[in-house]
Amino acid sequence: MHGLMQDRALSLAMLMDGIEGRFGHKSVVTTELHRTTVATYREVAQRVRKLAGVLDDLGVPRGARVASFGWNSQRHLELYMAVPCANRILHTVNHRLFADDVVYLINDAADDVVFVDRSIFEVVWPLLDRCPTVRHVVVADDGPAAPLPCDPRIHDYESLLASAAAVESFTVADERDAAALCYTSGTTGRPKGVLYDHRSVILHAMSLLMVDSFGICEADTVMPIVPMFHVNAWGLPYAALMSGANLVMPGPATAPDRLVATMATHHVTFAAAVPTIWQSAIPHLHRADLGALRRLVSGGGALPVSLSETYLEALGLPLTSSWGMTETSPLVCSARTPSDDAGLSERERLMGLTIPGPPTPLCGLRLIGDDGAEVPRDGRSSGELQVSGPTIAGAYFGSAATNSAFTDDGWLRTGDVATIDPRGFMRIVDRTKDLIKSGGEWISSVELENEIMAMAGIAEAAVVAAPSVEWGERPLACVVAHHGVDVTADDVRTHLRGRVAKWWIPEDVVFLDALPKTATGKFAKAVLRTSLTRSSEAR
Amino acid sequence: MHGLMQDRALSLAMLMDGIEGRFGHKSVVTTELHRTTVATYREVAQRVRKLAGVLDDLGVPRGARVASFGWNSQRHLELYMAVPCANRILHTVNHRLFADDVVYLINDAADDVVFVDRSIFEVVWPLLDRCPTVRHVVVADDGPAAPLPCDPRIHDYESLLASAAAVESFTVADERDAAALCYTSGTTGRPKGVLYDHRSVILHAMSLLMVDSFGICEADTVMPIVPMFHVNAWGLPYAALMSGANLVMPGPATAPDRLVATMATHHVTFAAAVPTIWQSAIPHLHRADLGALRRLVSGGGALPVSLSETYLEALGLPLTSSWGMTETSPLVCSARTPSDDAGLSERERLMGLTIPGPPTPLCGLRLIGDDGAEVPRDGRSSGELQVSGPTIAGAYFGSAATNSAFTDDGWLRTGDVATIDPRGFMRIVDRTKDLIKSGGEWISSVELENEIMAMAGIAEAAVVAAPSVEWGERPLACVVAHHGVDVTADDVRTHLRGRVAKWWIPEDVVFLDALPKTATGKFAKAVLRTSLTRSSEAR
Repeated sequence: MHGLMQDRALSLAMLMDGIEGRFGHKSVVTTELHRTTVATYREVAQRVRKLAGVLDDLGVPRGARVASFGWNSQRHLELYMAVPCANRILHTVNHRLFADDVVYLINDAADDVVFVDRSIFEVVWPLLDRCPTVRHVVVADDGPAAPLPCDPRIHDYESLLASAAAVESFTVADERDAAALCYTSGTTGRPKGVLYDHRSVILHAMSLLMVDSFGICEADTVMPIVPMFHVNAWGLPYAALMSGANLVMPGPATAPDRLVATMATHHVTFAAAVPTIWQSAIPHLHRADLGALRRLVSGGGALPVSLSETYLEALGLPLTSSWGMTETSPLVCSARTPSDDAGLSERERLMGLTIPGPPTPLCGLRLIGDDGAEVPRDGRSSGELQVSGPTIAGAYFGSAATNSAFTDDGWLRTGDVATIDPRGFMRIVDRTKDLIKSGGEWISSVELENEIMAMAGIAEAAVVAAPSVEWGERPLACVVAHHGVDVTADDVRTHLRGRVAKWWIPEDVVFLDALPKTATGKFAKAVLRTSLTRSSEAR
Repeated sequence: MHGLMQDRALSLAMLMDGIEGRFGHKSVVTTELHRTTVATYREVAQRVRKLAGVLDDLGVPRGARVASFGWNSQRHLELYMAVPCANRILHTVNHRLFADDVVYLINDAADDVVFVDRSIFEVVWPLLDRCPTVRHVVVADDGPAAPLPCDPRIHDYESLLASAAAVESFTVADERDAAALCYTSGTTGRPKGVLYDHRSVILHAMSLLMVDSFGICEADTVMPIVPMFHVNAWGLPYAALMSGANLVMPGPATAPDRLVATMATHHVTFAAAVPTIWQSAIPHLHRADLGALRRLVSGGGALPVSLSETYLEALGLPLTSSWGMTETSPLVCSARTPSDDAGLSERERLMGLTIPGPPTPLCGLRLIGDDGAEVPRDGRSSGELQVSGPTIAGAYFGSAATNSAFTDDGWLRTGDVATIDPRGFMRIVDRTKDLIKSGGEWISSVELENEIMAMAGIAEAAVVAAPSVEWGERPLACVVAHHGVDVTADDVRTHLRGRVAKWWIPEDVVFLDALPKTATGKFAKAVLRTSLTRSSEAR
C-alpha cells in the first residue's frame, strides 16, 4: 500500500523559494583579480530566472548539456541553479586538463553551449573548432582582458541576461532527471561522466546540513575553495543555498595569500579545499584575523597529521578530513570526534580528525577482500572500499562508460583499500587503482608509462606515486633505457611536453637497469614504491 | 535524460546498518514504573529482526496494519522499526481517546494485530470484541499487573520473540510504500488517517539532524516525552536511530517529577514535549542537575513567553517553539535566532524563540487570504497557512477521508491563520478550524456542542477555547436553556460523561439568555471568546 504524502519531486527548483524569500537578504561575494562583487540571494535568483530565459533564447533543447569553464563565482553559481532548474544539464569542465581531454569531454558530452570566464577564454576558444556540437560560446567578463575575436558564436553573458525574459516558474517533474555532469579522471583510460540527478543533489545537500557532517547553517559564511568544476564544488554551493548561509567565492584570486585575506575580510566560517591548498596557505595564516572560522575541511587527498596540527597551532582550529569521489557527489565520510572520547588524548583526537571518519546517514560502506567476501569492520582488516546510496553513481555516462567499477549488486567499487572500525570510522590504507593524486587531481600512471615507453630508446617505464608535502603525491618515473642508449631525465620531460598536461610531467625520473616484476610479469610497483620513494619523503 | 545515480529506495531499512554497526554500542533506556531497562542498539536491532519474524509467525499479511497501544519504550521502538521494515504498516493509537473512537480507529484501519502494553491492556481489551479484524493481541509486560484473561488471541511479547526466527534481510523496494499510520482528530468529524511512507519518514528524520532545526547528532541523548502515538513521537526515535544519538524513553513514568528526574539521571541533552508538560515540570526543575541539556523543544500548542522565560531563568535554557501537525510528519517550523540578531534585545530573542520560526528546507509555506490570493510575507498580513512538501500529507486515509483539507494544487490547508515575516519566520495568529487544543490534544468544539444540544432542556450551545496556563486551552461551554428549564453546569457535565472522552468535559459552563449570531446565523464565536474568556485567563 502506498503512503499518501504529497508527490513532490526533490529538485533544485525547491531552493528557489528560499533564496528569493527568506534568504533573499543573504549574500554572495566574489573576489575577482581587481575587484570584489557582492549580490544578495534575491538578486542572484532574479538573474537565475533570466539566465534560464537565455537558454531558451539560444534555443538550447531540454536535456541538452551546457558546459561551463569558470572560476568559483556568482555567475558560476547562477549556472549551477539556472541550468538544472531550466531542465538542462550543467557540464562543469576543468580547464586545466590537457587540451585533447577537454576536446574529448565536450564532444563526448555533446555540449550545446559553452559558458566561459573571460580569463579562461584563451585556453578554451582554440579548442572549439574541434567541437562541432557547440553552437554558442557565452563569455563572462571577470576582469580586464583583450578584446574577443569577432565570431557570431560568441556572446556576452551580461548582454544576453539584459535582453532575456525571466522564467517565472521552474518545473522538474521527475527527480531522477539529470541535473549536472562531471567527468572523472579517477580511473585509467578515458574520462567517464558522472551524471547527477536532482534527487541526488538535494539529498547530498541535506547531508551537508547535518551536525555530524559539515553542519552548514544559516549563520555560516561558506567559502568553497575547491573549484566549481570539481564534483559540484563538493555540493557546498547547493548546501549554502539550501540553508541560507552566505557564500564567498574566491574567483580567479586563488593565490594562497589572497585566499587567506578573503577568508579574513569576509568573516568566513567554513572553508573547504584540497590539502595542497591548505599547505600553501600556511605562511599567510599569521597575517589575517581568521577568528570567524568554525570549521576547515580538507578533502581530495590524504590529510597529513602534521598539516592539521599546524592549523591547530596557528588558528586553534584543526583541519578536518573528509572523503568522497566524483562518483559519490562527493561527501561520503567526514571526520568528527566520537562522543565517547573521554579516553582520548589531545593528540589522538587530532589524529582522529585526519582520517575520513564515519559515513553520512544515506551512504552504505563495506569492505571486500580479495576472495570477494566482506571483511570485518574491526579497524584492522582491510579490503576494497565499496559504497552504496542514492547519492552514489550506479553507472557511468559517455562513450568510455564501463561497468567494471560497479558490482553485480550495484555498489560502487572505489579502488581504495580501507579499514572501518566498529564505530564506522573509515581510514584509507592503500589504493588498488594505478593512480597518483597530485594537488587533488588524478594522474594516470598507466598513461604516463605509455607515453614514456613510446619514446625512442626506452625499453620499460613504470610510474609510481611518491609522497610530496606540497602536492600530496607526485609521479616518479622509473625508466629502463635500451642498452647503450643515452637518455636523460630532461629528455623524458621534453618528450612528455605536449603529450600530457603540464602538471603531469614528473620532476623525478630514475634510471634503472631493470624493473622488478611480479610473478605474472607485471611491474612490481609496490617494490618500486617501497625502495625508491623513501628518499623523496622530505620533499 | 535520467541521471545515473544508484537506485536506492529511501526506507527505514537503511537505518539497520547503522544501529547494528557503528551505533551498536549506543543505548535505549526505558524507565518503567518500578524499574529501568537498558539495551544497546545492537540488541534492539536483533530484537527488531526477531519481531519481524513474529509478524511472519502470526501470519500478518504484507501491507496489513499493526496497531500499537503503548508508552514510549524500547519495545515500542522495536515496533517502530520492525513493522515498516517488514513491509507492514504501524498504526499507533492514542489509548486516551474516547472508547468509541478507539473502536472506530481499529475498524477503520482494519488492524490485523494489536500490540499493547500490559498497563494499558485493561483499557483496550474490552473494546476488541467490537473489532472483528483483530486476530491477535500481543501484550508487553511493563510492570506488575493482574493475570491476563485466558483467550487464544492473547500472546506474550517476549515469548513470541523468544521463539521467532530473525529476519535476516529487509527489503523495501518502493520508497512510497506506507510505513506508519496515525489518525488525526485535528479536524471536525471522524478522525482521518495520515499514511506516512518510508520516503517521508526518512526525509523528515534527515531534517531533524540539521543544525537549524533540532540538530540531533551522535553526541545527543534524546528523550521524546511526546507520546509515541503522536505523529511518530515527532520523528525523534527515527532521528536518533539515524544519527546514533542515545534514546531515553520515559515509559509510563510520565509524572512531572519522574520526567525531570529521568532527564537528570540519564544526562538527557534534548527533550521535546507539549507546553502542558513543560508547565507541570516547573516545580521540580530545581531538584535536579539538568546541566547536560542543550535544547528543549515545545510543540503541539502555543508556547507562552512566560513559560519559556521560566526555563531560561531556572536552567539557563529557554523552551524553544516548533510547529507541525499529524499531517506534516510533523516538523515544519522550528524556532531559532536569526544570525543577524545584533539589534535584538535579550527579551526579543526570547520572544523570537517562542514563535514557530522558519521552515525546514523541504517544506514550502504560503498564506492564502479570504479572496484566495496569496498574502504577502511581510510579518503583518495574515492568511490561512498552507504547506507543501514530500513530508506533508496529500490525502487522508480511511472512510472519513475528504479532500477539503487539500487545495487543487495539492497543498495542505492547515486551518491555522498565520503571518510570515520576510525572513520566513512564521507565527500562528488565529485558527480557522473550530477546535480547542488542550494539553497538545485536539478537542472538537462542534462535537461537544452537538452532544450538549442533544440534552433535554437545552436550546443552544457553543463551545469556545478559553486560555489555560496548565493546558494551553480548555473548552468553555456557552449554553442557552429552554425557557423555564433549570439546568446546572453539573447536569451538563454529567450528561457528557460517557459520551465524550473524560478530558473533553468542560470545567466551565456559562449560561446565557441567547448566543450572539453572525449575519449568516452562525454562532459568533469570536464575540463569545472575546467577551467570556478574558476572566479565565489567570486560570
